[in-house]
Amino acid sequence: MPLDIGLLVFPDVQQLDLTGPYEVFASWPEARVRLVWKSRAPVVSSTGLRLEPNETFDDCPQLDVVCVPGGVGINPLLGDETVLAFLRRQARAARFVTSVCTGALVLGAAGLLRGKRATTHWASHDLLAAFGAIPTQGRVVRDGALMTGGGVTAGIDFALTLVAELAGIETAQTIQLNLEYAPEPPFDAGSPSTAPDDVVATLRKRGAKVRAEREKLVEAAARSLSMVAMD
Amino acid sequence: MPLDIGLLVFPDVQQLDLTGPYEVFASWPEARVRLVWKSRAPVVSSTGLRLEPNETFDDCPQLDVVCVPGGVGINPLLGDETVLAFLRRQARAARFVTSVCTGALVLGAAGLLRGKRATTHWASHDLLAAFGAIPTQGRVVRDGALMTGGGVTAGIDFALTLVAELAGIETAQTIQLNLEYAPEPPFDAGSPSTAPDDVVATLRKRGAKVRAEREKLVEAAARSLSMVAMD
Repeated sequence: MPLDIGLLVFPDVQQLDLTGPYEVFASWPEARVRLVWKSRAPVVSSTGLRLEPNETFDDCPQLDVVCVPGGVGINPLLGDETVLAFLRRQARAARFVTSVCTGALVLGAAGLLRGKRATTHWASHDLLAAFGAIPTQGRVVRDGALMTGGGVTAGIDFALTLVAELAGIETAQTIQLNLEYAPEPPFDAGSPSTAPDDVVATLRKRGAKVRAEREKLVEAAARSLSMVAMD
Repeated sequence: MPLDIGLLVFPDVQQLDLTGPYEVFASWPEARVRLVWKSRAPVVSSTGLRLEPNETFDDCPQLDVVCVPGGVGINPLLGDETVLAFLRRQARAARFVTSVCTGALVLGAAGLLRGKRATTHWASHDLLAAFGAIPTQGRVVRDGALMTGGGVTAGIDFALTLVAELAGIETAQTIQLNLEYAPEPPFDAGSPSTAPDDVVATLRKRGAKVRAEREKLVEAAARSLSMVAMD
């Protein structure tokens, strides 16, 4: 029986957060990969790639794996009850609840990170704590049925780790070899601890507006969660 | 003035060959990234992702960078004169002619690899020689204005290398940090020299039919090239 893997797709998603894991999952013959959103109308990624959802929240069956990618477009999702309710509903019976990059914050807003170790993109990592998560450094962080990946390209490491868990190491290795995933980054600049200070500063400056907006939305989402908890 | 980067998109493209470099290039504010094909009708990738071309061969301006991704779908392109003529025309004035994965074979069929060092996906690497290329091992191989990447995920390394060449190292590092590209593959199975023998054998068996068809098409394309050369 095929495994149903659903990736959330939404306006201003960072497309590589989605397309990296997509290629890993869809290379596994047992997986049926769905792109889920409110409607089937195409959405435009943060870098302009058009992506077509093929499943709506209403029609989507129970998923074995639900995965939320990140990107600038997660900001409005943090207070979007339709999205959060879908994730909560799926999370009840999914084998794995997962995220890549800042998708973790959406899981947080849905109340799915409470008391759990989780990771996200380095520039938003500290925001996990607002949702009661235990912010944990790592390319892929697993806490029971929760598996979160770091920023963008960590989605490939995450997806291979998850396939190994679900289908065995040999299946994951076969996909890895087919994708010739023996990376050789030309520079050692992929994390803020190794990148030149100027490069880190440039990105912090460029992301300041999105970050400021995100802080407010995370705070509001966390407050609304704690009120739910008190109900 | 923005740089025009055109990625060929076609039925049965391996979408990560395209979406990896796409994200790197499109993260560079100076780049205008186009997806080029015969028409603007959506095409379906080898793993089922729908992609929308936004430029046709007829309308496409002279590109600064032309890039051919790979995938099962390159087989029919090896004898497709419309595609090959477009690539030859663009190659005359492009700053860089490039490929990811088996996209290199399409460049070969267009006669653009003659006497040049090039790489491609490990399972098709030996086929480069038919086009007069010098098959060269490497994640990213540059020979003058020709830059070829290895299989699938090598596209990310390739694109960062190319951005560094066009825009400087700091721009490439900024993109790398934003994409948190500090990869940690969960297994050491990304190349045939490190993967378990069984895994290599599984993939060779699974790819045997596509490979057999490709050998014939490469032979025919190489023959037709040598006839052009004799004209």
